[in-house]
Amino acid sequence: MPRVSQKHLDARRRQILDGARRCFAEHGYEGATVRRLEQATGLSRGAIFHHFRDKESLFLALAEDDARRMADVVATQGLVQLMRDLLAGSRQLHPEATDSMPDDRDWLGAHLEVSRRLRTDPGFRPRWAEQSQALTAATRQRLRRQLDAGKLRTDVPVEVLAQFLELALEGLLSKLAMGLPPDDLEPVLDMVEASVRR
Amino acid sequence: MPRVSQKHLDARRRQILDGARRCFAEHGYEGATVRRLEQATGLSRGAIFHHFRDKESLFLALAEDDARRMADVVATQGLVQLMRDLLAGSRQLHPEATDSMPDDRDWLGAHLEVSRRLRTDPGFRPRWAEQSQALTAATRQRLRRQLDAGKLRTDVPVEVLAQFLELALEGLLSKLAMGLPPDDLEPVLDMVEASVRR
Repeated sequence: MPRVSQKHLDARRRQILDGARRCFAEHGYEGATVRRLEQATGLSRGAIFHHFRDKESLFLALAEDDARRMADVVATQGLVQLMRDLLAGSRQLHPEATDSMPDDRDWLGAHLEVSRRLRTDPGFRPRWAEQSQALTAATRQRLRRQLDAGKLRTDVPVEVLAQFLELALEGLLSKLAMGLPPDDLEPVLDMVEASVRR
Repeated sequence: MPRVSQKHLDARRRQILDGARRCFAEHGYEGATVRRLEQATGLSRGAIFHHFRDKESLFLALAEDDARRMADVVATQGLVQLMRDLLAGSRQLHPEATDSMPDDRDWLGAHLEVSRRLRTDPGFRPRWAEQSQALTAATRQRLRRQLDAGKLRTDVPVEVLAQFLELALEGLLSKLAMGLPPDDLEPVLDMVEASVRR
């Protein structure tokens, strides 16, 4: 018998994550039953829970996945560019991973679900804090590099600039996740960008 | 038999809204069963649905209530002040209504629940758009007055300034609703304020 290749395992894991994301976005965490997860992924519960210990672990893996993708964009192009990508409805948060990117609406719905669980499930918080660390760190590293390059204003501490950008990102995610008719927010993002620059 | 006074009716309505808000914040819209609404308000289903046609109408009345309170603060003190009040964890969004103000956490939880329903329930959107109109209008009126008073920058259209402030408000609401340890966001709000001023 041939051994199951790593590539095959990775593809299967990706298949589960993409289906689960749709399922969480559509039905919410509690509503995403094992049966619905089976339907959304096209896999049996046995296959799903071979890759992820339980529903909580699956959800956290999704959240971690998103945080890491956002961190990659922030590290190379900055947080304002991440916001522009999100606004453009781009399906391509991470240039190297085009073909495996989830639909933005699923992604945003899952993000809103993370917000909800942070509020209603205190046990979720420490685990999420760990996962979102990558994005927080990438934002500050990028800003420090920009500061060294003389591109940022210097009258406000970098930490405040980081929190300002994070507030705008949180607002954008919330707006987009609500699915409201998108205003033309490009000029608003221009304002956000200008506010941190020299 | 004495007629039920308007004052009594209003107090009863307020009692229902405050209890329902707690209930929606804690259990989510779907989880707020009629039985839980009875427990949270201390009233029978008969009494509750004498004042509100159904759960949907009760939820919308809450959302409208919140939008109006926020609009009152914005009209007199501006959107940045509303954000400062929220950040301070003030229980007093509207100075004239101190004794009937809900706990901020309930209020924010209910707000996050509105976001969720906007995403998952398309029928909810047009009804909410109507309710949130008060806040949108108050923000623009206030900005126009500030512009006339020479307090705002003039190189960016008022509409963009309004959307910029609304993005920050949305981000703040989202952050607070998540119940994360509040960063010291005062300097960030100072930045937001300075960004729209002359």
